[in-house]
Amino acid sequence: MIEIEVKGYANERVFERVRENFKLIRTEYHEDTYFRHPCRNFAETDEALRIRVRRFNGHFEAFLTYKGPKIDQNSKTRREIEVPISDPDKHTEILRNLGFEEVLTIEKTREKYYVDKGIIIDLDDVNGLGKFIEIEALADREEVVEETVMLLREILESLGVEKFERRSYLELMLEKEVEHGEAG
Amino acid sequence: MIEIEVKGYANERVFERVRENFKLIRTEYHEDTYFRHPCRNFAETDEALRIRVRRFNGHFEAFLTYKGPKIDQNSKTRREIEVPISDPDKHTEILRNLGFEEVLTIEKTREKYYVDKGIIIDLDDVNGLGKFIEIEALADREEVVEETVMLLREILESLGVEKFERRSYLELMLEKEVEHGEAG
Repeated sequence: MIEIEVKGYANERVFERVRENFKLIRTEYHEDTYFRHPCRNFAETDEALRIRVRRFNGHFEAFLTYKGPKIDQNSKTRREIEVPISDPDKHTEILRNLGFEEVLTIEKTREKYYVDKGIIIDLDDVNGLGKFIEIEALADREEVVEETVMLLREILESLGVEKFERRSYLELMLEKEVEHGEAG
Repeated sequence: MIEIEVKGYANERVFERVRENFKLIRTEYHEDTYFRHPCRNFAETDEALRIRVRRFNGHFEAFLTYKGPKIDQNSKTRREIEVPISDPDKHTEILRNLGFEEVLTIEKTREKYYVDKGIIIDLDDVNGLGKFIEIEALADREEVVEETVMLLREILESLGVEKFERRSYLELMLEKEVEHGEAG
C-alpha cells in the first residue's frame, strides 16, 4: 500500500467547513522529534527519522518512523516504515549514542476526520507555523497515485484551500528559523 | 546501576556443577543480530548495536540494545541501553534504510540460574562457538566494580572455570571467520 498525502494551508473558515461536513474521529496531540543522521545529510537525501509521541483520550503512544524520499511531484507521498516503541526517552538515548542528534521538536494538535472509505482529513494546528489541512488516501499500486492526488487536491480546493504545500513541517520550521536568523 | 559480567570457557562438567548447585530460572533461546554502523567502526570504538529475539516458555520477546565501550580491565562490564521492540523485522528494515548493515546472527541456548540475591549464572551453548558460563551482578557505584569482579571470578573458578574471556560472542565469531578465511 502507498500512503498518498496532500497538504494545504488552511484558516479557521476551512477548519469550520471540515467540522461541519465530516465526522470527527478524534483529537490528537503530537510531539514530533526529528533527528539528524550521523553521516548523511537528510535535507539532501529527502529522508527523515522521527520519534512521535501521540496522546489522545488519555492514551499515550510512541512511534519510531523512517521516511524515505518523496516518490511523485504533486504530493508528499513517501515510503514510510513505522514501529511502535514503548520507551521514547530510552530510544532517544540509543539514537544519541549512535550519533543521531535531535534537530527540533514540533508540537501540534491534530483533529482527524473521516471523509470516505480510506480517505481521512487532518486539521493540524502547528505551534509556530499555523493551520494546515492534510488529506490522506491509500493506493494499492503506483499507477493510480497521480489520479488519486488530483482527486485529493480537488477535495481540498472545494473546502476553500488555495495554496498547497509539499514541504514537511520540519522543512517549513527549519526555513523559518533560517529566515529569522537572517533578519536578526 | 552497573551490570557487571564475567565470562569463562565451560564444558559439560562445569555445566553439571551449576545444574546441581543452583536453581534453574528458565531456559531461553536467543537469536542475536549485530549491526555495523554506517560511518563508525564499532570494532574500534568497542560499541555494538544488537537486535535480540528471545524465546522461552512459549513467550516471544525482542529488544534493541546499544552497548557502549567496556569500562574496566577484568570484566566485560559496559554501559547498556536496552528497549523492548514489538516488530524486530520492521525495526531491522528501518536500521537498514539508515545505513546499518547486519554483520551476523548468533544463536544460542541459555540456561539461567539463581545464585544469590542479584547474582545470576548463565550457561550458554553458542552455535559454532561452544559452551560458556557467564556470571552477572549489579553494582550501584563504580568504586565496588573491581571487588565485585574479583568475587565473580572466584565463584567461576570454584565451579571449575580455568580460562576467562572478555571478548563478546560477536568478536569471537568474527575472529573465527577470519581464521577460517586465512586457512582457506
